[in-house]
Amino acid sequence: MNGSVGRLVSILYRKQQVYLNGALKPFGLTASELPVLSCLFGNDGVSQEDLSCFLSIDKASTARTVQSLVDKGFLTKEKDPSDRRANRILLTARALRQKEEIGEVLQRWTRFLTEDFGEESLTVLFRLLEEMARKASTADLRELDKVDDEKNG
Amino acid sequence: MNGSVGRLVSILYRKQQVYLNGALKPFGLTASELPVLSCLFGNDGVSQEDLSCFLSIDKASTARTVQSLVDKGFLTKEKDPSDRRANRILLTARALRQKEEIGEVLQRWTRFLTEDFGEESLTVLFRLLEEMARKASTADLRELDKVDDEKNG
Repeated sequence: MNGSVGRLVSILYRKQQVYLNGALKPFGLTASELPVLSCLFGNDGVSQEDLSCFLSIDKASTARTVQSLVDKGFLTKEKDPSDRRANRILLTARALRQKEEIGEVLQRWTRFLTEDFGEESLTVLFRLLEEMARKASTADLRELDKVDDEKNG
Repeated sequence: MNGSVGRLVSILYRKQQVYLNGALKPFGLTASELPVLSCLFGNDGVSQEDLSCFLSIDKASTARTVQSLVDKGFLTKEKDPSDRRANRILLTARALRQKEEIGEVLQRWTRFLTEDFGEESLTVLFRLLEEMARKASTADLRELDKVDDEKNG
């Protein structure tokens, strides 16, 4: 096996950031704010700490991005009644109103990348990407580099 | 179609950065330095401007990353004899000596993510990822957000 998933994911990610920065400009959003917003679309009211953990973004960057989205009117923060030191992050009415349009920006990217794929390839692609994302999300990545993988497939 | 390639690529990319930052520490490298180094492993002596363009990384970030890799002893800069304002970026002997080991860090990530996939899935995965990366690389991404895609797959 000579291909590198990491190399291809990096290329796709960087191009995606360029596309997203352009396509999100009319919303006043940047590509780096989208993961936080997307995560909240699925988990409104989550704590800032859980957000950082779900997204594998360090706490300082998460705090900066959340604050930027608060300043832009997409999010509000409120103290968690059960833990006064923690903040719950909530979507504003404005964010909820624009949820579909923002989702459409991502869908347009998927359609563009996959427009030449048949139904079957598309199904396989999503199955394999989902499996890799799940595997990457559940692994202890800080341990992975210490394990000597014997398989040289 | 409900899946989002962008969402899955983002998840994979963020986890990959966590893995790479750990796995590259023994080399004194960070995840964000790897694309520059990998690009030079394939195109030693390229100009700083072309590096920025190939990688879709803005000029200021490219300059910072190149300088960091120069300071760490992986790269040297030299004036392009045909254009005195341009810098050619060259790998040092140290970088060339560690090329295989650094490549192995990326291969380990690919093996980890795909270890449960059969030969056929692996072939399809690489074909589809390569096709998407090529498509993303050749497109005018700043125009894509202005085009209304009719296909609602």
